[in-house]
Amino acid sequence: MPELRKDPVVERWVIIAKERGRRPTQPSAAAELPVSPNNPFCWGNEDRTPPEVFAVRRDGSSPNTPGWTVRVVPNRFPALQVEGDLDRRAYGRYDLMNGIGAHEVIIESPDPEAELSDLPPEHVADVVTAYIERLKDLRRDLRLRYHMIYRNQGLAAGANIRHPHSQLIATPIIPTMPKAKLDACLRHYRTTERNLYADIIHWEEEQEVRVVSRTDHFIVLAPYASRFPFELAIYPLRQCHDLPLITAAERLDFAVVLLDVLGRLKRALDNPPYNYMLFTAPSLTPRPGRPDFWGTIPDDFRWHLEIVPRLQQTAGFEWGTGFYINPVAPEEAAQFLREST
Amino acid sequence: MPELRKDPVVERWVIIAKERGRRPTQPSAAAELPVSPNNPFCWGNEDRTPPEVFAVRRDGSSPNTPGWTVRVVPNRFPALQVEGDLDRRAYGRYDLMNGIGAHEVIIESPDPEAELSDLPPEHVADVVTAYIERLKDLRRDLRLRYHMIYRNQGLAAGANIRHPHSQLIATPIIPTMPKAKLDACLRHYRTTERNLYADIIHWEEEQEVRVVSRTDHFIVLAPYASRFPFELAIYPLRQCHDLPLITAAERLDFAVVLLDVLGRLKRALDNPPYNYMLFTAPSLTPRPGRPDFWGTIPDDFRWHLEIVPRLQQTAGFEWGTGFYINPVAPEEAAQFLREST
Repeated sequence: MPELRKDPVVERWVIIAKERGRRPTQPSAAAELPVSPNNPFCWGNEDRTPPEVFAVRRDGSSPNTPGWTVRVVPNRFPALQVEGDLDRRAYGRYDLMNGIGAHEVIIESPDPEAELSDLPPEHVADVVTAYIERLKDLRRDLRLRYHMIYRNQGLAAGANIRHPHSQLIATPIIPTMPKAKLDACLRHYRTTERNLYADIIHWEEEQEVRVVSRTDHFIVLAPYASRFPFELAIYPLRQCHDLPLITAAERLDFAVVLLDVLGRLKRALDNPPYNYMLFTAPSLTPRPGRPDFWGTIPDDFRWHLEIVPRLQQTAGFEWGTGFYINPVAPEEAAQFLREST
Repeated sequence: MPELRKDPVVERWVIIAKERGRRPTQPSAAAELPVSPNNPFCWGNEDRTPPEVFAVRRDGSSPNTPGWTVRVVPNRFPALQVEGDLDRRAYGRYDLMNGIGAHEVIIESPDPEAELSDLPPEHVADVVTAYIERLKDLRRDLRLRYHMIYRNQGLAAGANIRHPHSQLIATPIIPTMPKAKLDACLRHYRTTERNLYADIIHWEEEQEVRVVSRTDHFIVLAPYASRFPFELAIYPLRQCHDLPLITAAERLDFAVVLLDVLGRLKRALDNPPYNYMLFTAPSLTPRPGRPDFWGTIPDDFRWHLEIVPRLQQTAGFEWGTGFYINPVAPEEAAQFLREST
């Protein structure tokens, strides 16, 4: 019997339809994108990108020269641009504003054929450092309300270049999905004085069936109402609403758990295309006119990472309804990934 | 300058980023899926499907034999199943219910290599008749609250068989997306005593730039806050909340306008993969405990069809935020499609 399950945070229903049976497959993500011959993300090509806004340079090299291990630059084809005013306005019944924001590329390695999942933990911790430093810097721009860090691996996940990279887009509005999560956490906290993610993690630790792995500081779950086969989420065990507030030990452990789970997916699903998305709190700096809009976030929200392998196409039913049909129960996915060592 | 635009119905923001420039391309949808050698959707293979629940048989042939032009059968691998009780229940903090529903396949032609966009209007009108008859029949099951009719064309749109077909899934909950539309229409009507879609169509007719085509009974728009390049919507000009209430003349004209717009997309974009989704009212039959839940729908909601070519992958940013980045402004798409004759 298929099941209809509701996500306890964003209240999204999914259909877990194991009877559909087919284990979805997609081409391996690694081989399908060629390395660009004029790759702007290599050592020596630093002048082919806009000037860097952050880099990890263990050798003390100068900005915009070789020697970096992680480098952050503005996107040359940004979805949103930094210069200008928002100019919120109406057009008939419609609302619009200028596309003000930031769009940056976090180049994770100078090696165009490297894969994030094969880098050493210390290197991945440097990628996380780049996320943190860019969040801190971009939050000084009070026009920008939310900062989404994400990663597209493979053509089917929307990547169009092979060179390993993440992206950051800062938007002048808190987008629908993080807003839904923040709102749900606030509602739960107001009712119970408890943290919603803490409740979920506590329940999942008791149940065990959807736990994929665990480290000193993190737990990896196959979410109860997973939209996609082998969807995963990494949660910190300690209450912390915002990635930049993690300790150095947690940062390295996050690199370890991320490598662990990407390695499991790679082995179990033959290097699948995937997306990951970081959900962290919006800036808590008071803004004119809304001084305490997100007052209880440090207690009610918890930062986390969602990982979605892209093993099947979303189709008309999903676009039309907002429901998802998932042919692999998260309990099965978790077991398969636990055993994939 | 990119623009942030908000959909006036579901309040979804999109980024119209023409500066990203690339015209997205995808392989042609037609050639990529092979015709199955044991195709259960041909004449003579009627016993390889569950018994038909509706068919158009102009030759008076018997059910489950050759001679039909359009045939509807239950899906052999249904996402939801008809038998059983809903059994709504809790599991810790989570909500679940049994996956009760209906999942049917509308076989649009006995010819496995036919394309919907090449069929004559009278044949497409028969497909619409099949939609209508199935809606009417399935609505007698009061467990089912919503009926989503959709079509996946091409691998990138989630199709896995070539033979031309649409699908219908009936769910025991009104899904998020139709619910958001119904709620927005109700709010607008309560405030203004006007129909939200009538207001949008009136504005778009004045502005002209996003109008793709027009027939006696229908108008085709590139929506102001299109999520995807060349996204389109077909609206009836006469207020009508529910597809089964259209006249015979409107049904034939709907086939004409659908063929017109699918033909424009095919010529302009080299036979792109696409999804279409029909949004019509839920059943207005009173249910125990909620006698007038959808009381003003006949005035406040209008049925319509959304068409989304699948020219680019959704990626981490879209999954993480619920925002969409669209590199082709709907005004450009509409002009391109108007000229594609």
